[in-house]
Amino acid sequence: MNTQHKTETKTVLQKENNFSEWYSEILKRAEILDVRYPVKGVYVWYPYGYKLRNLTYAFLRSLMDKDHEETLFPMLIPKEELMKEREHIKGFEEEVFWVTKGGSTELDVPLALRPTSETAIYPVFKVWIRSHRDLPIRIYQIVNTFRYETRHTRPLIRLREITSFKEAHTAHASRAEAEEQIKKAVALYKNFFDVLAVPYVTTKRPGWDKFPGAEYSIAFDTLMPDGRTMQIATIHLLGETFARTFDIKYEDKDGSLKYVNQTCYGISERCVAAVISIHGDEHGLMLPPAVAPIQVVIVPIVYSSEGEKKETDVGKICSEVFAKLKEAGIRAFFDDSAERPGAKYYRWEMKGVPLRIEIGPRDIRNNRCVFVRRDDFSKLQVPISNVVPEAKRALNEIHTCIAKRAKETFFAHVSEGEGEMETRSSTAQGIVSIFLCEREKCGQEVVARLGAGVTVLGEPIEGDKAEGGETSVKSAEGNCIICSRKGRRVYVARAY
Amino acid sequence: MNTQHKTETKTVLQKENNFSEWYSEILKRAEILDVRYPVKGVYVWYPYGYKLRNLTYAFLRSLMDKDHEETLFPMLIPKEELMKEREHIKGFEEEVFWVTKGGSTELDVPLALRPTSETAIYPVFKVWIRSHRDLPIRIYQIVNTFRYETRHTRPLIRLREITSFKEAHTAHASRAEAEEQIKKAVALYKNFFDVLAVPYVTTKRPGWDKFPGAEYSIAFDTLMPDGRTMQIATIHLLGETFARTFDIKYEDKDGSLKYVNQTCYGISERCVAAVISIHGDEHGLMLPPAVAPIQVVIVPIVYSSEGEKKETDVGKICSEVFAKLKEAGIRAFFDDSAERPGAKYYRWEMKGVPLRIEIGPRDIRNNRCVFVRRDDFSKLQVPISNVVPEAKRALNEIHTCIAKRAKETFFAHVSEGEGEMETRSSTAQGIVSIFLCEREKCGQEVVARLGAGVTVLGEPIEGDKAEGGETSVKSAEGNCIICSRKGRRVYVARAY
Repeated sequence: MNTQHKTETKTVLQKENNFSEWYSEILKRAEILDVRYPVKGVYVWYPYGYKLRNLTYAFLRSLMDKDHEETLFPMLIPKEELMKEREHIKGFEEEVFWVTKGGSTELDVPLALRPTSETAIYPVFKVWIRSHRDLPIRIYQIVNTFRYETRHTRPLIRLREITSFKEAHTAHASRAEAEEQIKKAVALYKNFFDVLAVPYVTTKRPGWDKFPGAEYSIAFDTLMPDGRTMQIATIHLLGETFARTFDIKYEDKDGSLKYVNQTCYGISERCVAAVISIHGDEHGLMLPPAVAPIQVVIVPIVYSSEGEKKETDVGKICSEVFAKLKEAGIRAFFDDSAERPGAKYYRWEMKGVPLRIEIGPRDIRNNRCVFVRRDDFSKLQVPISNVVPEAKRALNEIHTCIAKRAKETFFAHVSEGEGEMETRSSTAQGIVSIFLCEREKCGQEVVARLGAGVTVLGEPIEGDKAEGGETSVKSAEGNCIICSRKGRRVYVARAY
Repeated sequence: MNTQHKTETKTVLQKENNFSEWYSEILKRAEILDVRYPVKGVYVWYPYGYKLRNLTYAFLRSLMDKDHEETLFPMLIPKEELMKEREHIKGFEEEVFWVTKGGSTELDVPLALRPTSETAIYPVFKVWIRSHRDLPIRIYQIVNTFRYETRHTRPLIRLREITSFKEAHTAHASRAEAEEQIKKAVALYKNFFDVLAVPYVTTKRPGWDKFPGAEYSIAFDTLMPDGRTMQIATIHLLGETFARTFDIKYEDKDGSLKYVNQTCYGISERCVAAVISIHGDEHGLMLPPAVAPIQVVIVPIVYSSEGEKKETDVGKICSEVFAKLKEAGIRAFFDDSAERPGAKYYRWEMKGVPLRIEIGPRDIRNNRCVFVRRDDFSKLQVPISNVVPEAKRALNEIHTCIAKRAKETFFAHVSEGEGEMETRSSTAQGIVSIFLCEREKCGQEVVARLGAGVTVLGEPIEGDKAEGGETSVKSAEGNCIICSRKGRRVYVARAY
């Protein structure tokens, strides 16, 4: 297949103050998603985009598989099951797609396209769980889920079909074990986003903004280049809410029947949106080596003046280097197409390949090649005999550099809000922390005063802010900026 | 998670003349699918079943990835697109699930849950394909598809949600190239089913039974233990039918605009149903090593009379053997649970683990272990130092043996039908070949005379029958058994 958008000249797509347009252009030019499908809010994954998606989810799977088991539950949920948990359905009622017909027959029971799978999974947990020996259960699935979005949709970010929802569901014998699982899930997600070099804050969402049916919700938020935060993961303590609704009980060691204690947590393809948005620059994608479909591209430099013999040599050495890299487990690609080298550079820069190796006749005479890094375009001459260890080192360095850069940018946009006016201007740039009490009324007042799009993200999870390494640990308690009662430090920001 | 159905005693589940019940019991006891989901025709994959599914599809992916690219298209298809290709929709109209509501809002355009993705993909091919340089396109996706089945549903076989449909779609510059692709697809699928040790015949379906919208259809059919055939793969030459409907043209080298020539081909989770049904026996699953979630299980034999010291030794040696097997890339499991060895044997026999290694105190004294094969329960003493190469050899032999056994059983049930009465009794057992002309009327007459459930599978693809090695090549031409006009040899059978 040969759908690539030819990039004959170096692309310069302004990103600053132009994020929305930049994002659309990059998705098209780097061949991540095609937006020309004739249904609102659903898109087509190009092969290159889907490789990036698959590598990202393969890594997520490898983390999950350590102590979860992958399963698959049905996509269709009968209306009565979906409606069982009242608080839960209140949160989703207006967003559910309904299947009402099969052929020309009206269905007896309307079937919902899963917006999330609690109500598909928990009736089955009820029959799976009998005894304390059946616990804990830790399962996950990677599935398509659906939301009837009435707001403005955006590829990978706000969708009617979420194609890649990784949702985990766990059941435990006690609340203490469920809370322990919450901590493990936070650690697992931190590990995941660290490898994607995506910075985040983790907060406990305000009580009025938790997942419908949860006791509390923890969320990961990253910062997009337009200064808005994007929620990239959520983790919920469900406690006994669903267990009581779906009657999920186990027989404890002493013979008594108890409700299980549950958690659930999820990540969608927003993780791919974050990778694209945070690292990309005016020349295209810049992919973290861990998930780059091509980690190293080899470009032969063939000067026609050097004659045919030399060209053959260049091709031969490139093939050898390519074979060595592949053997070492590096995702390499040898671009021996007929285009001129410049055109190749621009294409693979657009596609975010972390490392380019150039090999020309003069290099061969000197038994060397040239490494060009995508993150800073720095060049390095490397002996051909060292190409594998040097490529590994370069990929590691590239990861470290883009992670550091992303983190610095992120924490430069996390600031303290002392007075209201200052907060208002700061939220135009990123995340601001203020003191707020727990009452929803004060939360709403803050949102009203700070303007459209501002959200209370919630209280930072302990130890989280310190990881930025840039700001000192601030007091967690202070007076609510609305009512002056006792409050706690919370983050506010304009959010996606 | 600990949902396994305890198998404390050796299972004896009669399979012969009892296939339907056997199949249901095996799905439950081996933990492949849970059928207790409250919607007809949709089921829950247990973790063990999903591992089998993932390994099967990982292998299929590895075959596809050689010259196809994986993509993902949306699940929702607007009514007008689905309805565009008249012949196509005639075949699906009464089987389509319709989404008609989002929240409480009636949708302007009803959205179909894809029954298959031609009408989702080809409008996008129209914008992807401009020039002969864009061809060929060879893509595939692995997705859930939906059919409003009104017939009796059955796990993995007849579903309302097909969870694992691998569908490939290709576009070419000429019919010759499309036909070449058909041959490649047949070869690829043969490779796939050979590794699953699933025998098949390939036939060209009769004109009146081809895929709606195709010029012709080729199908793979295997034989289930109840004597009925099951279609496990289909391959379609679409020619220009969809290209004309969806206006998919390319500019040829001479500047002229031409329609592309298309093919599509698919495999669903029926491939997993075939593996389970064909190889399983009265003790449970018997999985081909290529897709077995656990290829080797290690069971320590601990006699309490031997004292604690010896038990520790057994555990230590088992761990070492386990580590060696894993290091060699074998999917091994060390069952060091507290149950007695017999209970372990029965559980892993039920789950179809190809090879069991038993290690007890006496074995350790003799530096050996005991291999027990799932396919014939034969035992072999193996020096512990040789365990890795011997395990590899045993797994290869097990594959060869179950493949041979399956093929022999299969071709013992493919016979010639000379007269009508003989054919009738033979179709109770398997596949019969008769001579039939091309007219649908004669096909219907055959079905009417041979009784309920009998289908004309179609004309064997050249060279296919010979692979059985059991029957000599028969004449392809003869007189139609209905009208005595010139006909060709076709297979008939009772089919799922």
